[in-house]
Amino acid sequence: MTIKVYGAALSTNTVRVLTCLREKQVDFELVHVDLFKAEQRLPHFLAKNPFGQIPVLEDGDLILFESRAITTYIAEKFKETGYDLIRYQDPKEAALVKVWVEVESQQYNPAIKPIIYQNFVMPLMGKSPDQTIIDASIEKLGNVLDVYEAKLISTKYLAGDFYSLADLHHLPYTYYLMMKTPYTDLINQRPHVKAWWEDISSRPAFKKLTESMILGDN
Amino acid sequence: MTIKVYGAALSTNTVRVLTCLREKQVDFELVHVDLFKAEQRLPHFLAKNPFGQIPVLEDGDLILFESRAITTYIAEKFKETGYDLIRYQDPKEAALVKVWVEVESQQYNPAIKPIIYQNFVMPLMGKSPDQTIIDASIEKLGNVLDVYEAKLISTKYLAGDFYSLADLHHLPYTYYLMMKTPYTDLINQRPHVKAWWEDISSRPAFKKLTESMILGDN
Repeated sequence: MTIKVYGAALSTNTVRVLTCLREKQVDFELVHVDLFKAEQRLPHFLAKNPFGQIPVLEDGDLILFESRAITTYIAEKFKETGYDLIRYQDPKEAALVKVWVEVESQQYNPAIKPIIYQNFVMPLMGKSPDQTIIDASIEKLGNVLDVYEAKLISTKYLAGDFYSLADLHHLPYTYYLMMKTPYTDLINQRPHVKAWWEDISSRPAFKKLTESMILGDN
Repeated sequence: MTIKVYGAALSTNTVRVLTCLREKQVDFELVHVDLFKAEQRLPHFLAKNPFGQIPVLEDGDLILFESRAITTYIAEKFKETGYDLIRYQDPKEAALVKVWVEVESQQYNPAIKPIIYQNFVMPLMGKSPDQTIIDASIEKLGNVLDVYEAKLISTKYLAGDFYSLADLHHLPYTYYLMMKTPYTDLINQRPHVKAWWEDISSRPAFKKLTESMILGDN
């Protein structure tokens, strides 16, 4: 049975999952959820995810939500297919992937998310961005990226000298930071972060998806 | 070689890791990091965790940080020891554990953390809590707990009819909510959440640790 992803092509959390499926060369069907009609808040969708958020993954009778849980599930279930995102054959490397997956989740995402929300989502809803929130988040993100810059001097990717789920999880939000906000210096003024970003964002599994992201397809 | 945990007995993120080690019946040594002296910001500690946060786990030459990465590492490495926290023998149950681990991380934690910070940490630093932040977070947490209440009608624990890492991750912050803030109705006025909380917080692996938490041991 084909895996179904309920989501939208412009949604960061949907793109996180789709990038993972493409890296793993797993066939899937994208079922469009129209955010502008708030379809994710309708009862039939809330039955899949009670938090009313996309994406949702259906694999047979198994229904999963939370994008980072879904990517980990895919990376483990299809560990021998496509690119190995979790270094499952090396317990130490696998543990370091977990650490940097959590760094994205706990340090990077809370800093970058408000910047994208204020600069990109608020205008889509016809509202003005709050510059105070943006400025505080830029400072937080800069501190996180200082740690990344130091780390990426010694290893090519976050968890080591291998691309992994930890790097992949950064793609959608950072892409909007670079394409939809004026704050590209956060990446470009840190040479190792810049080289890392150019490397990971040019992988075919992600690059193809950016066409729909940038068009703002819902 | 004994596993070392660098942390503090009153730290929520440290207690998350210690509870997991105790559920898995794994011996460990707790190396005290004095937060009031900001030891976590000293160079020798930053060499272990460049974000300057506790806990850090040392397992031989492997150094890990981020509490949720550490608990997952422990639960997987010692999967056959102590209580099974990840349902590793059932891929569907294991996937649902991942979903609800992420729910704690992305939905519950961002809502409860500011409440504890404002009510408990700010006074420790001699500062006044910001009621605006507390009120907004109480509303967010209430919405999350409404979903929990509905879920816990159909299953005894978050991921299913089994205690798992997903439940465990909620323990330290919820304990402080119940012991150090006046907002206990968030839990007590939702009968299934209340029953769930009384169940999970009475597990011996956690209960023993609360003695040091409540004394405010640094």
